[in-house]
Amino acid sequence: MRILVMGADGYLGWPTCMYFSQRGHEVIGVDNYFRRHAAREQNCEALFPNPNLNQRAIAWKDNTGKTITIHIGDVSNYNFLRDIFETYRPEAAIHYAEQPSAPYSMIDYERAAFTVKNNLMSTLNLVYAAHEFAPECHIIKLGTMGEYGTPNIDIEEGWIDIEHKGKKDRFLFPRQAGSLYHTTKIMDTDLLWFYVRTWGLRVTDLMQGPVYGISTDEADLDPRMMPNFHYDEIFGTVLNRFLVQAVVGYPLTVYGKGNQIRGYLNINDTMQCVYLSAMQPAKSGELRIFNQVVELFSVNQLAERVKAVGDKLGFTVDIASVNNPRIEKEEHYYNPTFTKLLSLGLKPHYLTDDVLETMLKSVEQYKDNVNKDAISIGITWR
Amino acid sequence: MRILVMGADGYLGWPTCMYFSQRGHEVIGVDNYFRRHAAREQNCEALFPNPNLNQRAIAWKDNTGKTITIHIGDVSNYNFLRDIFETYRPEAAIHYAEQPSAPYSMIDYERAAFTVKNNLMSTLNLVYAAHEFAPECHIIKLGTMGEYGTPNIDIEEGWIDIEHKGKKDRFLFPRQAGSLYHTTKIMDTDLLWFYVRTWGLRVTDLMQGPVYGISTDEADLDPRMMPNFHYDEIFGTVLNRFLVQAVVGYPLTVYGKGNQIRGYLNINDTMQCVYLSAMQPAKSGELRIFNQVVELFSVNQLAERVKAVGDKLGFTVDIASVNNPRIEKEEHYYNPTFTKLLSLGLKPHYLTDDVLETMLKSVEQYKDNVNKDAISIGITWR
Repeated sequence: MRILVMGADGYLGWPTCMYFSQRGHEVIGVDNYFRRHAAREQNCEALFPNPNLNQRAIAWKDNTGKTITIHIGDVSNYNFLRDIFETYRPEAAIHYAEQPSAPYSMIDYERAAFTVKNNLMSTLNLVYAAHEFAPECHIIKLGTMGEYGTPNIDIEEGWIDIEHKGKKDRFLFPRQAGSLYHTTKIMDTDLLWFYVRTWGLRVTDLMQGPVYGISTDEADLDPRMMPNFHYDEIFGTVLNRFLVQAVVGYPLTVYGKGNQIRGYLNINDTMQCVYLSAMQPAKSGELRIFNQVVELFSVNQLAERVKAVGDKLGFTVDIASVNNPRIEKEEHYYNPTFTKLLSLGLKPHYLTDDVLETMLKSVEQYKDNVNKDAISIGITWR
Repeated sequence: MRILVMGADGYLGWPTCMYFSQRGHEVIGVDNYFRRHAAREQNCEALFPNPNLNQRAIAWKDNTGKTITIHIGDVSNYNFLRDIFETYRPEAAIHYAEQPSAPYSMIDYERAAFTVKNNLMSTLNLVYAAHEFAPECHIIKLGTMGEYGTPNIDIEEGWIDIEHKGKKDRFLFPRQAGSLYHTTKIMDTDLLWFYVRTWGLRVTDLMQGPVYGISTDEADLDPRMMPNFHYDEIFGTVLNRFLVQAVVGYPLTVYGKGNQIRGYLNINDTMQCVYLSAMQPAKSGELRIFNQVVELFSVNQLAERVKAVGDKLGFTVDIASVNNPRIEKEEHYYNPTFTKLLSLGLKPHYLTDDVLETMLKSVEQYKDNVNKDAISIGITWR
């Protein structure tokens, strides 16, 4: 299968390129290095340097003999993406090419405006390019569980049947997000759902929870091929942040009461979920939505797990509640459904103590690189 | 009260400026003439020439001695809107400044991209400017009944209580629109709802149906102050189109089966609804949503009403079903609630035969101006 990976330089984008290439697919990766530039600008660069995308593709070829084709450019520029579609006519397009950080979207007007324009235009451009050059292309869009927020009813997988005053219909499950970034993902869904109905696009929307992990079978072949790893307030997901904090003796920063519950998954499960979705595509005119998580934790539970394993390894791990910079419920009901990807064949990697230990040891190798100033930058929602 | 009208040159914007000014309020009107430029570009200019906005404000001063302050600029440019907010710190901002046409949004990529950028950035800019310079400013946002689409359940006013698996919560009423333009209005609602929760903005979202009419008490004072009036496929609302078609002997173009039901209102009722909303504002942290229609008609009913009155006046009115250029249900359930604006004090103007007769006679004065090519331009959703 010919696969386009948009956002191929990212934490998930690059491992995805390798995962598909390893399994015999033709992979075209595109990226504009936004995240690298933003991380430098905000003084929160990754834990270790990653070679640029062209260099990573060379490392991949060195190790496997396989080719990943790279184009550097901005998918929010339609001319660039149209040329890619016209040249390659991909059978599937995996769309990671969005400004991915909630705190970044809340810094100031410039970053807010960038987030809206980048995320919406990248999605609109994908819709148009697919319609124009590859109408059968299966669009695999990374959404987020954060689109649902924390409603007081069970969260279904994307859709809900509503009976109201004696009549029934089926709708997108209600969405109400906790940041501008998450809100742009809701808007993406609105946009895709319109064009699925109007133009018969094939779309899978993966409502992903926070991802953790640093190792995949392919990345482990060569240090040049490791995923970029962020532990900062802006681009670091919570568990990855805690791992770095544990290693350098920075108290784990729990926001507020720490009873915020979310669904999490290992980076290896993201690979599986995206791959399973691509191999069993949505039908023409179908917006298929999967909740992409494998287990639930509160922030306090994550902190306690990291502390227990970290202490055992000889780190001195403290936990500190800090004023919550976000506006969110710190106590809430949370009961999401997540069975559809299991039905497609997902074999989950759970967060065992062994997994935590392996991750802590990996991170420890880079402890001298840690910039403690990046852990608490001080961005607030107010 | 100090009122900012964004999109002050529009069909509703200009009459709104006069309506508030007449009632003693300080009015600042801004516009970038997008609609005039687009109408010229698409060869579908208004039925009669309207003086530019500065000239209209001079006419208003001539007739009433009152001042409407005009600034020409683009509210999707944050520097422009920020300066307006910093200078005037309005107590209410009425946001009409969007690309308002469903067919325009479906022409091609360029117009689609413009619609997304213009509509989303104008709303984001308003949110930021209000937050920065006038946090108590009441934002009155024109939404559309089209955001709801045609669901098989009764349409409530913006919100719905859902009971699901034994638990309850309240959500935005499900939205699924029939064009990209309407979809950007859904995205506006998503954006406003996020910032209402996060920053405590005051917002009223008016879910308006198609508006008809050409006359308001203020516009009738002087022909220079008439609203711009479009009868074309792109910028003309359906009843206004039918009136012009009746007068020039162009068969009324009913899309498909014509059983599409919508809620309609007279331009005078738009004035009342916006005014009542401004005088009884939303609370801080409240997203208040009103369905702004006063009666329901199918397209066939509208066509038959226009034919009956038109024939009586001596026009020869035919009705012709044309292939539906849109993708929409031509037979559907439709039962929207619209009581909240009545509770605020709205006194509806219904579509009587007298109203139709008056409108037909007004339009007849300009029949020599009609460009029949603009009635069916041939934009399709496919």
